[in-house]
Amino acid sequence: MCVSNKDKKMVEAITSREDDFAKWYTDIVKKADLIEYSSVQGCVILKPAGYALWENIQAEMDKRFKETGHENIYMPLFIPESLLQKEKDHVEGFAPEVAWVTHGGSNKLEERLCVRPTSETLFCELYAKIVNSYRDLPKLYNQWCSVVRWEKTTRPFLRSREFLWQEGHTVHENEEDARTETIKMLNVYSDFCKEFLAIPVIKGKKTEKEKFAGAVDTYTIEALMYDGKALQAGTSHYFGDGFARAFDMKFTDRNNNLQYMHQTSWGVSTRIIGAVIMVHSDDNGLVLPPKLAPTQCVIIPVAANKSDAVLVKCTEVAAMLKNIARVKLDDSNNSAGWKFAEHEMRGVPIRIEIGPKDIEAGEALVTIRFSGEKRKIKFEDLATTIPTLLDEIHDAMYDAANKRMTVTAAKTFDELKENANNKGFIKAMWCGNLECEDEIKAVGGITSRCIPFEQEEISNTCVCCSKPAKHMVYWGKAY
Amino acid sequence: MCVSNKDKKMVEAITSREDDFAKWYTDIVKKADLIEYSSVQGCVILKPAGYALWENIQAEMDKRFKETGHENIYMPLFIPESLLQKEKDHVEGFAPEVAWVTHGGSNKLEERLCVRPTSETLFCELYAKIVNSYRDLPKLYNQWCSVVRWEKTTRPFLRSREFLWQEGHTVHENEEDARTETIKMLNVYSDFCKEFLAIPVIKGKKTEKEKFAGAVDTYTIEALMYDGKALQAGTSHYFGDGFARAFDMKFTDRNNNLQYMHQTSWGVSTRIIGAVIMVHSDDNGLVLPPKLAPTQCVIIPVAANKSDAVLVKCTEVAAMLKNIARVKLDDSNNSAGWKFAEHEMRGVPIRIEIGPKDIEAGEALVTIRFSGEKRKIKFEDLATTIPTLLDEIHDAMYDAANKRMTVTAAKTFDELKENANNKGFIKAMWCGNLECEDEIKAVGGITSRCIPFEQEEISNTCVCCSKPAKHMVYWGKAY
Repeated sequence: MCVSNKDKKMVEAITSREDDFAKWYTDIVKKADLIEYSSVQGCVILKPAGYALWENIQAEMDKRFKETGHENIYMPLFIPESLLQKEKDHVEGFAPEVAWVTHGGSNKLEERLCVRPTSETLFCELYAKIVNSYRDLPKLYNQWCSVVRWEKTTRPFLRSREFLWQEGHTVHENEEDARTETIKMLNVYSDFCKEFLAIPVIKGKKTEKEKFAGAVDTYTIEALMYDGKALQAGTSHYFGDGFARAFDMKFTDRNNNLQYMHQTSWGVSTRIIGAVIMVHSDDNGLVLPPKLAPTQCVIIPVAANKSDAVLVKCTEVAAMLKNIARVKLDDSNNSAGWKFAEHEMRGVPIRIEIGPKDIEAGEALVTIRFSGEKRKIKFEDLATTIPTLLDEIHDAMYDAANKRMTVTAAKTFDELKENANNKGFIKAMWCGNLECEDEIKAVGGITSRCIPFEQEEISNTCVCCSKPAKHMVYWGKAY
Repeated sequence: MCVSNKDKKMVEAITSREDDFAKWYTDIVKKADLIEYSSVQGCVILKPAGYALWENIQAEMDKRFKETGHENIYMPLFIPESLLQKEKDHVEGFAPEVAWVTHGGSNKLEERLCVRPTSETLFCELYAKIVNSYRDLPKLYNQWCSVVRWEKTTRPFLRSREFLWQEGHTVHENEEDARTETIKMLNVYSDFCKEFLAIPVIKGKKTEKEKFAGAVDTYTIEALMYDGKALQAGTSHYFGDGFARAFDMKFTDRNNNLQYMHQTSWGVSTRIIGAVIMVHSDDNGLVLPPKLAPTQCVIIPVAANKSDAVLVKCTEVAAMLKNIARVKLDDSNNSAGWKFAEHEMRGVPIRIEIGPKDIEAGEALVTIRFSGEKRKIKFEDLATTIPTLLDEIHDAMYDAANKRMTVTAAKTFDELKENANNKGFIKAMWCGNLECEDEIKAVGGITSRCIPFEQEEISNTCVCCSKPAKHMVYWGKAY
């Protein structure tokens, strides 16, 4: 066996997720080789296994954006200070956490530039320039890029000073079109989570307190992690004409009148990789949903000595499955046992073992990463079975995550406080006042996750102040 | 006809490339809607038509990188000042032109961070950390990102304070492996230029004066623009173990000895889009090589009034060609003439016109953007003809560019000076001394483009000092 010191680390056990969920998480991101820390404080390096997840997410989301009529553009990395300051709420929200460029080479800049924390202001400036008439609308642009927010505490994928994301920015003739777009993209996100990541989400609206700096309404998809905490996995904002007024974004409407544009933005970041890890993975490492997995099946030759016949069969199976799934043959010098552990750690959905006895029996031993289930499958059936199996795994992962998504109703403040220590969302009625939201946060240690689209009337009074209730809200601890 | 003011601008004539090449170029990038200027000085916005070119370039190059065993990663945007300073030549080359981040939010940073101008230093730090043994080698990583260089004068695509690029960074056991990689990637670049962009290039080595800051050897592909000036379209560097010594990048070799790694890097940027424009386009606008073109065929209904039969036929043809080429049906309200001009300006390789008479005759009128040639093609033959035609156009564009790539030999300094005013490369012998290179630049206004791999012996003395010649060099004016 030929394992370097670095390799050996990988097969060491990781912290159990029941013992220390935070440590389990950082163990996985390191031992599944997703990231490496760098000397740039608060930023991580996405290694091949980590970046490949983002590449797959990007390819699938980009396809869905284009199918819904969006086009990609690329904006400058920098925003002049004066431009950032044009919309008041926006600058208040973001200025405290931006990185400032003050010098180009050895020269001090006349005006400071911030490294974009988000690009609303740049898009506003563009739209003000290029949209004159209703005929130019809607403009449905998206950008793939990195953004910078000077966070104090950071964790790989979940919170990082620099992160990769997409930001869609659209402008429309009227409120109705813009609101339709906002919800359409929220649905694109939730469908993507369900169909590609096997993650169920709750769709709803953020409270005033939790909405985006500068938005009229912020919509969110909220997922539940294995430890029972929520994670905001994507947001979609309706801006009304607030930015349009600040940036003088006018157009000639169908009646030849000058109007302000109505605007949206929506974004998903590498944070969603954190959600994938915390929803699906286990004490043996990463568990990847099949559609996301860079390698869907790993083929491992199992033979005491390097057996030519085994390797020939493995190569044959790999070739047979090549156009059916993303297959990798691991013919490295490591032992079969080491390979099992490694590909388990890396979350490969299906392992296909082939040894001399399997060849005699005309079948391979197939192990499912998610469930640990083993099946013997005839070689000639592999090509038809594997795609079905990948779909089954996806569905089983979604179902398991969905089952864990507990939602407990609280009718009284005591119930709310009690439930705050349990896993999952708490649904409770709310009067709509910030004071109650603040008190629930202060006393219960939970925040409002969203006002879900699917409303129920648990009672007719606010769980906090007992005044008439306006909404049912999902509350919870969150990342 | 329903054309907004903004639209009208597009069909206005552009400056002739013979009259004012620089103005012709900026007219095209604006009127083909590739870019928009922003309030961020020295940075441009890549609009959908411009960004789509980079997306296609990226997809094709990424495929070629992966086929040659490379993996993508993502590095932080920032480099701490102390890290940038570790390799002396490198910091000298780049420090004068980097943007410095000095503040995070309202706090002054303890150490300044530069926005990456290139990421050698970060890759060095990573490789020092993750490579222990020869078994970990080679590491073949690539990154797609934007970089920042604080240029004083900028031009869209050609020179911009921020630009998109890819940077490959690899480490190897020994010099031979690293040198092989350096040349392999140069060949990937030149094949890509020929096969995807229809651009012929000269491959060669840069002189000491022109090489990358920190490299032992820099290799380049040089293309020739329509105005006869050269453009460096991609570079590949062999670093030896220079960075490895500065960053303590050691590994245990096959004999259990500690060795320094041997290293390469290679990059191509959005600059190459400037090359595509300046090699292929004409006075009617952009001319896109078919493989790069986001839309390969535009179908335009031609009818005095909106004819249902014509539109039905156009839709039918669009559906028929959908899986054969990237087809767009322009059924907008603009006049046919306006559409012709617009899609010409945007460089769509093939235009298919269909009117009532064409339907009667059972054929479409096909116009080739590059040559202006028109062909009548039976509807039933379109599906087989279009792919062939796209290939023919590619070849014809390559041949035309190749014919324009004039190389004139100069045996004397007078000949060199005289030829410096003409279009194209000048080949001349050189002694290898910097003094002569400097004099040729000062007197002739031309720089050494490369020492081409294909050497000839034009004479045996240096064109400048008449001492014994070492190399034949390609000289020229350059972007």
